[in-house]
Amino acid sequence: MKMSELSRRSGVAIPTIKYYLREGLLPAGHATASNQADYDADHLRRLRLVRALISFGGLSVTASREVLRAISEPLDLYHTLGVTHYALGAPVADTGASAGTGNPDAPGEDDDCAAEAAALVDRMGWSVGEESPGRAALAAGLRALRGVGADVGTDELLPYAELAAATARVDLDHLAGIEDRIDVAERALVMTVLLEPVLATLRRMAQEHEAALRYPSESKQPPRSPAPRAGTDTADRGARTGSHRAT
Amino acid sequence: MKMSELSRRSGVAIPTIKYYLREGLLPAGHATASNQADYDADHLRRLRLVRALISFGGLSVTASREVLRAISEPLDLYHTLGVTHYALGAPVADTGASAGTGNPDAPGEDDDCAAEAAALVDRMGWSVGEESPGRAALAAGLRALRGVGADVGTDELLPYAELAAATARVDLDHLAGIEDRIDVAERALVMTVLLEPVLATLRRMAQEHEAALRYPSESKQPPRSPAPRAGTDTADRGARTGSHRAT
Repeated sequence: MKMSELSRRSGVAIPTIKYYLREGLLPAGHATASNQADYDADHLRRLRLVRALISFGGLSVTASREVLRAISEPLDLYHTLGVTHYALGAPVADTGASAGTGNPDAPGEDDDCAAEAAALVDRMGWSVGEESPGRAALAAGLRALRGVGADVGTDELLPYAELAAATARVDLDHLAGIEDRIDVAERALVMTVLLEPVLATLRRMAQEHEAALRYPSESKQPPRSPAPRAGTDTADRGARTGSHRAT
Repeated sequence: MKMSELSRRSGVAIPTIKYYLREGLLPAGHATASNQADYDADHLRRLRLVRALISFGGLSVTASREVLRAISEPLDLYHTLGVTHYALGAPVADTGASAGTGNPDAPGEDDDCAAEAAALVDRMGWSVGEESPGRAALAAGLRALRGVGADVGTDELLPYAELAAATARVDLDHLAGIEDRIDVAERALVMTVLLEPVLATLRRMAQEHEAALRYPSESKQPPRSPAPRAGTDTADRGARTGSHRAT
């Protein structure tokens, strides 16, 4: 197919496709004539993956290129997952760490949090590499929680870690049936990046339900937005950007 | 304390504190003389919370102001959680939806995904308001997954929803012992925003462990970064921004 059809079928604008080609996120098309190139189903599939990583997964172009390069290497599932995690970095950029370091009220808390993270991995008996980005990310998360006075340590995290272990078993079950190695790598990436906001959403909905269960007499009316909304479709984006708000 | 001490103890630069004051994220100090204001422990605590929401939680200034205003209203825990969720919006901005809508290969998938999301809530027996942002966020997540060919529906999500329910019970247990209403609201906010990346990190570490368990013969060496790193501290940020990379 021509680039115009690739654009139409993917919903990605032509200038954006050209940008992805220049940035190496999408392999070049098959040259058919001077200034003409042909794209196939693999291009369409890759383009949709790039689009999902960037727009829904919130990855940068650089991180997307790195992770796509990583999953193209010939590795088994264990190493594919590892390389994917390394290329992705922490689930949230660790910008909170510098604020923590600059706080003289809590000297040495950086080391404490790294030790708490390591203690949790030990208590769970997890095989997690010393260089795994999860260790630093977990320490950064504990630091951010302590910075606001929420004293969350190994004991508090243990039940969450048990549930994470159960979640990972469900994840790996889904990968087990896939034969093609690139398919497995791509699915592992999709599962890690695109399922994360879905799981966060499920937790929030479950919190709403659990709060309604525990405080039945107080919850006759479902919670409502503090301000009138223009419409349900724009509500989420409005909360982030301040647009479409009646306030 | 003076603003200089507030800055020193919080690790937040004075121009940033002034910006938060102008934006209404931090209440004004107590006036002591012309051009002088005094700040107390509540200011310090609020400043640390704002810092954590923006730098670690990834919230915008607008979303932070909205959520802080929401938790200052006199509500019970059920409504406090609900208002917090509404003010936060979706866990990830739903920018993927427009790409999905523009895809003519999958007509009507928007409605399908909303129906799948509603079916999951019904199957779980969850009390979740019709206007809850979780419903739209879940539909957007399913849409993004389908866009890359991962056919995740109600059946696939059910085990994840069960684990989310168990996670929410742990969450609510942590809130149950707190007496002060503002403390509960603040903790609910911290738990929702700051624990999300921690839980995502735990899942990735558990995936690494589970993959090592299931593929033992292939995993003698722990996975490594595809490129040499400048150091563990900068590695995560490097993957996002492209800085500090040896490639």
